[in-house]
Amino acid sequence: MTEEWLLDRSSDTPLYQQIHDRIVGKIRSGAWPVGTKIPTQRELAERFGVNRSTIVYALDELSADGLIQSKVGQGTVVANNTWNVIASARTPDWGRYVAAGAHRPNQQLIQLINKAEENPAILRLGTGEPAPELLPARAMMLSLQNSAASLSLSYSEPRGSLRLRETLSRYLLAKGINAAPSSILIVSGGLQALQLIALGLLHDGSAILTESPSYLNSVHVVQSAGIRPCGVPMDKDGLLARRLGSMKRKTDAAMLYTIPAFHNPTGCLMPAARREELLHVCMHERLPVVEDDVYGDLWLDEEPPPPLKAMDREGLVLYIGSMSKSLGPGLRLGWIVAPVPVIDRLADIKMQTDYGTSALSQHAVAEWLETGRYDEHLSGLRAELRRRRGYMDTLLNRYMGSRAEWSLPQGGFYIWLRIRSPIQVRRLFDLALKEGILLHPGSVYDPGLDEPYLRLSYAYASFDQMELGIRRLAALISQLSGDNTQEL
Amino acid sequence: MTEEWLLDRSSDTPLYQQIHDRIVGKIRSGAWPVGTKIPTQRELAERFGVNRSTIVYALDELSADGLIQSKVGQGTVVANNTWNVIASARTPDWGRYVAAGAHRPNQQLIQLINKAEENPAILRLGTGEPAPELLPARAMMLSLQNSAASLSLSYSEPRGSLRLRETLSRYLLAKGINAAPSSILIVSGGLQALQLIALGLLHDGSAILTESPSYLNSVHVVQSAGIRPCGVPMDKDGLLARRLGSMKRKTDAAMLYTIPAFHNPTGCLMPAARREELLHVCMHERLPVVEDDVYGDLWLDEEPPPPLKAMDREGLVLYIGSMSKSLGPGLRLGWIVAPVPVIDRLADIKMQTDYGTSALSQHAVAEWLETGRYDEHLSGLRAELRRRRGYMDTLLNRYMGSRAEWSLPQGGFYIWLRIRSPIQVRRLFDLALKEGILLHPGSVYDPGLDEPYLRLSYAYASFDQMELGIRRLAALISQLSGDNTQEL
Repeated sequence: MTEEWLLDRSSDTPLYQQIHDRIVGKIRSGAWPVGTKIPTQRELAERFGVNRSTIVYALDELSADGLIQSKVGQGTVVANNTWNVIASARTPDWGRYVAAGAHRPNQQLIQLINKAEENPAILRLGTGEPAPELLPARAMMLSLQNSAASLSLSYSEPRGSLRLRETLSRYLLAKGINAAPSSILIVSGGLQALQLIALGLLHDGSAILTESPSYLNSVHVVQSAGIRPCGVPMDKDGLLARRLGSMKRKTDAAMLYTIPAFHNPTGCLMPAARREELLHVCMHERLPVVEDDVYGDLWLDEEPPPPLKAMDREGLVLYIGSMSKSLGPGLRLGWIVAPVPVIDRLADIKMQTDYGTSALSQHAVAEWLETGRYDEHLSGLRAELRRRRGYMDTLLNRYMGSRAEWSLPQGGFYIWLRIRSPIQVRRLFDLALKEGILLHPGSVYDPGLDEPYLRLSYAYASFDQMELGIRRLAALISQLSGDNTQEL
Repeated sequence: MTEEWLLDRSSDTPLYQQIHDRIVGKIRSGAWPVGTKIPTQRELAERFGVNRSTIVYALDELSADGLIQSKVGQGTVVANNTWNVIASARTPDWGRYVAAGAHRPNQQLIQLINKAEENPAILRLGTGEPAPELLPARAMMLSLQNSAASLSLSYSEPRGSLRLRETLSRYLLAKGINAAPSSILIVSGGLQALQLIALGLLHDGSAILTESPSYLNSVHVVQSAGIRPCGVPMDKDGLLARRLGSMKRKTDAAMLYTIPAFHNPTGCLMPAARREELLHVCMHERLPVVEDDVYGDLWLDEEPPPPLKAMDREGLVLYIGSMSKSLGPGLRLGWIVAPVPVIDRLADIKMQTDYGTSALSQHAVAEWLETGRYDEHLSGLRAELRRRRGYMDTLLNRYMGSRAEWSLPQGGFYIWLRIRSPIQVRRLFDLALKEGILLHPGSVYDPGLDEPYLRLSYAYASFDQMELGIRRLAALISQLSGDNTQEL
């Protein structure tokens, strides 16, 4: 191994990153001009004296940077242009925000999932959105003609359309939340709400307490803003509120993020008593709470207890709602309820980011809330989700009765499935993907998870797809468990 | 002055910032609990031994943080709650991104302008958006019912709806731009395009060359991302391309940002010869170009020369378009055209930020482009803008013939007005605002501007408002010039 290829093994910079940077240097300096065929993975592994998997990581990054490209029959060649070199020279915040450690495979998995979801033929067993046929696209378009006169195509106010905020104020009151229009900010979906909170209210390096597992671990923007989710253990009633005080002190957490209604990914519903306890502890600890209630309207058996925000007398709770799970993610419309100074700050950042949310979406949502169409739609959607939940339960009992454990959620989309045999879920994911079935491994929601879990969703796949998917899933689990006596 | 109030005058931290931090400390420690009436500005100025204007800056920040509140008859009191304390503890990126120097008053002015625009009664003489009555809100709603069947309310692909990208590909071809749908990214308006570029392609501290003056100086997100706009001098044909090479080397600029068609704020149209020269220089210098063409469709006399992107053979130009100026800012819809690896990177960041742009907006724009409604609308809009341009010219000749200089733009919205007497534009802004007239001072677009300029727009104010506004403007300029022989 010549010096040219020598890596610094005592450095904090991971080896794959060093290799990446070394190759970027060769491309930038002109040593490897555009069109150069670069050495094979095997050759690079030998020259650098590392495992081939390390080379694969480095090449993946270079490929994501647009600096190299694999061509059939030609191997891998340098494909840079000026823009790409700039792109690759970026600060690490977005591209390589987690240079090492447990999060990396997690994020790699999320990228694989996102990529697979672009394939329209894929069978999605865990996707967190309602199937297109459950969304009232046609009805929405037709309904809008009645209200054409009140649409404005100008910029809306910084907090969003006043009409929509007034309408939401009434809608929230029905949940027990007393929110003036001035304390509501319209955002482009729940993800943007999290981004605004990360940018506007948190330090780089802040810790956030959250359920373990939690959707928050799958949110790239949280990690790229340098925010550390810290998992609080759960029982069947949700996160253990009594642990919050000591965990806050241990982690110096800046806030708590929680999904009390139909938690993602566990489906758990926090009962009223636990909610009261949680709020009590948080008030005592002066621990601000972000309450994510995007599944709240999707109760299937009975209405959930009032949100934490409804019990909040001290402005401690920042509340997030959205139309993405109930009326359509394509609307890109959600809201934040918070004390006015916080709303002002977040509105300011939002205006600097995108000048507001689509006027068409704001108009459509106001219209559907005001005319009662939203409530009608929810009734139908709940009936459909109930059928789907029942069917998935039947399938799980039929094919996986002895191989897995689960409990049925009282609302939302998700079944948190524990697989009894100690299989490698990543292996299961790969095998299923080869068969055209997309799974959501539990590690996406808890990088430290040491038992095999999957997040299943009954909201997306059709009945036929669910049957096929759960049946194949059971067979693959058998196979990986080294057990050939497959059920059925 | 006791030690408690002693400031560090040798520190890089500006005095107002030190004062701000000192007061935050008092609030956080509990020394000044909620409801505490804080000392008056005069008292604080004495205790800290600074000018009162420094105190005003510090209190403005505290007020923006939500930590203090002025109440009529009660003075200024501490109004914090837990959220606010967190908010005030933010890293400086967003809140105090420019701690000192020329940009600060500039940004303060922009905030004043944004605030004034929230007042529906304000007379806007420089606003960069079309008047609501020029936008086809009603027609858009009515038209959508015909195409209800093709709407999807699901998430769209990461680059945006394929249908819209295919439609845009044809629309761009008519401008001479050969862009495959895979090299187009749908974004939520031109501002988001700039944000994605700043986050995805630039380092913190990168310099960008741009026209002097330039819209870019008014864009908060550019500054909060730590990007330094560097002004390139202009003549009547736009920026001086021959200066780019030396300026690139001097500033180590990462790219050029330019608005060749109907430049904001000067209205300048770059002729074909200058475009060719510019591209030639940029290719020679390997200087990537961001071409902002959001006004391109708003030509009033004749079609502009082809965009830089149409002449780009090397993937050097990243092109930005938008429906905000022509069809409606409320749609929040724009696009980026760039080499595929760049689009992939920006699409990835966009997905992490807001999961895409409103499906309703994407649907409406595709529909209007495909059916020819967009072109019809443009014809009508151009006719209307022509009338307005002519009327504003008449008014300027009538009231300000000898007091100012301007030339009529061949498209877009803006007239760049140079006031002949050396008045304080900030003073003019304040006086006009007191009369309910909102101006856009030239310093917003060039913080180093040492002559009195205003950006006027004929797109927003009504004919009556223009008459009143220009007349009053002329009177105020006379007054500030110490000249009482007001014209007419």
